[in-house]
Amino acid sequence: MVIGASGFTRSGDSKAVLAALAEKAARDHTRITLMTGASLGQGTDGALATAGAVARRLPFQSDPVIRTIINEGKISYIDENLSETAAHIRNGFLPPIDIAIIEAAAIEADGGVVPTTSLGNSAIFVQQARQVIIEINEAVPVGIRGIHDVFLPEDPTGRAILPITEVWQRIGQPVIACDPSRIAAIVFTNQKDSPAETAADNAAAEAIAGHLLHFFKQEIAAGRLTRSLRPLQAGIGKIADAVLGGLADGNFEHLSMYSEVLQDSTFKLIEGGKMDFASGSSMTMSEACYQRVFADFDRYRRKILLRPQDITNAAEVIQRLGIIAINTALECDIYGNVNSSHISGSHIVNGIGGSADFAQNSYLSIFVTESVTRGGNISRIVPMVTHVDHSEHDVDVIVTEQGLADLRGLDPRQKAEAILRHCVHPDYYDDLSDYFLRACRRGGHTPHLLEEAFRLHANLAATGTVKTRILQSI
Amino acid sequence: MVIGASGFTRSGDSKAVLAALAEKAARDHTRITLMTGASLGQGTDGALATAGAVARRLPFQSDPVIRTIINEGKISYIDENLSETAAHIRNGFLPPIDIAIIEAAAIEADGGVVPTTSLGNSAIFVQQARQVIIEINEAVPVGIRGIHDVFLPEDPTGRAILPITEVWQRIGQPVIACDPSRIAAIVFTNQKDSPAETAADNAAAEAIAGHLLHFFKQEIAAGRLTRSLRPLQAGIGKIADAVLGGLADGNFEHLSMYSEVLQDSTFKLIEGGKMDFASGSSMTMSEACYQRVFADFDRYRRKILLRPQDITNAAEVIQRLGIIAINTALECDIYGNVNSSHISGSHIVNGIGGSADFAQNSYLSIFVTESVTRGGNISRIVPMVTHVDHSEHDVDVIVTEQGLADLRGLDPRQKAEAILRHCVHPDYYDDLSDYFLRACRRGGHTPHLLEEAFRLHANLAATGTVKTRILQSI
Repeated sequence: MVIGASGFTRSGDSKAVLAALAEKAARDHTRITLMTGASLGQGTDGALATAGAVARRLPFQSDPVIRTIINEGKISYIDENLSETAAHIRNGFLPPIDIAIIEAAAIEADGGVVPTTSLGNSAIFVQQARQVIIEINEAVPVGIRGIHDVFLPEDPTGRAILPITEVWQRIGQPVIACDPSRIAAIVFTNQKDSPAETAADNAAAEAIAGHLLHFFKQEIAAGRLTRSLRPLQAGIGKIADAVLGGLADGNFEHLSMYSEVLQDSTFKLIEGGKMDFASGSSMTMSEACYQRVFADFDRYRRKILLRPQDITNAAEVIQRLGIIAINTALECDIYGNVNSSHISGSHIVNGIGGSADFAQNSYLSIFVTESVTRGGNISRIVPMVTHVDHSEHDVDVIVTEQGLADLRGLDPRQKAEAILRHCVHPDYYDDLSDYFLRACRRGGHTPHLLEEAFRLHANLAATGTVKTRILQSI
Repeated sequence: MVIGASGFTRSGDSKAVLAALAEKAARDHTRITLMTGASLGQGTDGALATAGAVARRLPFQSDPVIRTIINEGKISYIDENLSETAAHIRNGFLPPIDIAIIEAAAIEADGGVVPTTSLGNSAIFVQQARQVIIEINEAVPVGIRGIHDVFLPEDPTGRAILPITEVWQRIGQPVIACDPSRIAAIVFTNQKDSPAETAADNAAAEAIAGHLLHFFKQEIAAGRLTRSLRPLQAGIGKIADAVLGGLADGNFEHLSMYSEVLQDSTFKLIEGGKMDFASGSSMTMSEACYQRVFADFDRYRRKILLRPQDITNAAEVIQRLGIIAINTALECDIYGNVNSSHISGSHIVNGIGGSADFAQNSYLSIFVTESVTRGGNISRIVPMVTHVDHSEHDVDVIVTEQGLADLRGLDPRQKAEAILRHCVHPDYYDDLSDYFLRACRRGGHTPHLLEEAFRLHANLAATGTVKTRILQSI
């Protein structure tokens, strides 16, 4: 059975039916293909996986339990660009959907479904599924109606122009159309989304934010940006949050977002009068922010919009708006290639998510990461990444707490020099420079020593650290 | 000095001024940054490089002489997605252009420049350069006027919608606007483009074409394609040419192209009544095809269109038209990642060209390659590619002469099984399967043995062959 369920970055997901399905599967070995918008909250992915219910999962997850089972090879996980799932369904590249399970704030007389805190892939799931199960979540105020812009391309090829030229522009409907005859069941719940994890203040994140804000100011001085920057996209997490937070203190004005997820920092910028409008596919907030926003929702209603994820992440719109994309790297190599998803090339963490959708098409593609992790025992800057989610062509700027490397207009050797000079932790500078210099002596446009390229990773596997001098001298 | 010169896949390039510049540089050590559309013909890149004239080169080359000097690290080569150079210029990410050198069939009274056999980046170069030098090539009939559709986005951000919804649609002007006061010189030449290399018939290319045509027929039977397929893009080379040639014999009709280069096979399909329209950025033909087309140009004029390369390669249009993209891989790995550009991760061959523009945004992204090269001593399917131009997310189908792997809707381990089963040469099947199975035992979503991942390449470097059993058993 193929299920398409609402939910994007733990917002607007099924609270009751998927949980009941996990219980059922533990008894009767039900096996499903589960498609969602992105990650689910409530521990649902873990519960389903533990019950053996998930044969196939796509396009994204961020749950430690299901991740372990995926890495054991026991669940088929199709890690997809978040923009692409809807097109793959329309094109018949994925199996047909039997049941859509959609959280809603209300159903209207004609079957119109009012979504809750995310839109994700819900509209395509409702359009394509044989049957629809609706979870009316009474914890979400009905007044949320109106912040969604539901748009489905007119034909399978999607030949229609996506006529969005401003972040605030509406091109669709406030509800998901659904013939009431296809609604198989309506379930009532009253349960908030899993709250966003609010990261404690982090010195590295603050330093990264500082470097990036300084860069923005330089770009303004050079006349390439204004104090409104350009529409921002930011991945989830403490670093992106710190960067956006930093914009509140700077000399910026009339900011806007065209992103996937509206986080606490988004609402703080709106409250501070710094941000005029934010478009996303979900609202993923801390408990405190959730309370604040829904207690006075009319304050925010005209400043936010939730769209399907194939619209938030559409190449066409991202290019047209000239987005500044800020995403997090797991590791970067000295030539600017980025790994966002796989540890040691093998073990997946979450997935590529929407990072490639934005990195490939943005005006400026920025990747942020701490230079080291695990107490300094692992360098996140390596000779060669073990998995490439973003090639050097799609990475304009890399920022660590050490500094910022502006890679625009540079060839690979110049990129390596910039990354070594600005981004690498001092403990690893000598080894990485030594690798680069010896590789250059062997030659090439992107010089490598293949027999040593992964020695950092191999050493880590053997000893749990790469802090010792692991790159051979000649 | 920064020069922007016409020329795309050896068509419509400067024949006189760049050659003279090479001679001048040999005497006086002139050093330039040279931007073009794509590759130049006439041995120009080699002559300039040998003369020491080229400090920096972008966004593409395919010349063996300049390639060697680039790989020695003596010329800064910025290998760019062909769609991006115009935007990088507009955004101020590249240095301002001093002189544009543009081949033309004619100049009109108001300064309108009639391009020749390519459009490439010529329009943005003319718009942005301080001064313009025109080479009137009398070998190109003035009657070529009208096959170009010159479109420049209205503002630096390019916020305008690109309103192309059909391959034949015109959105611009037939000439490149240029204030006559900016024309510094006009030079007359009479010299044809370097002809395309016509590959001899090749059994592997024919086999690949056969597998792909069979696949298209299956897709038609499944209702996902019609006999008109969808607009085609094909990279340059004998395999793509064989695939397109095969379409002439099959039961296809009303085909169209939205590609970069119109090659011999394009014109044969038009002549055979199989292809209704072909849009590209250049015409790169054999001597015989060139003669045929220009002897009776009115036969072709309403069936072809040349556009700027940021339009032919625009994500927006490629997605909207639902392109079937066929590009050539240098090597593929068992998980479907593709290397299009760098040997052993270090030495560049040509560059990424437009392959990523199409692979990332097409309806179907197909990569073709022979399973082995150098007399069977090198497998082009490897455990892990040494350079990633296209991640598994942007590769739907891989075809070798052995067979076709349809990777749609598969997870990484399933992709590996499909590629091993269908694409690998029998001589390498055991070793690659052994690698995959042992990696799976170690675990992971995309299982690898990092310490062995490049052993094929290391063995090649040491012995000149990977034909011996090089992957260790446990």
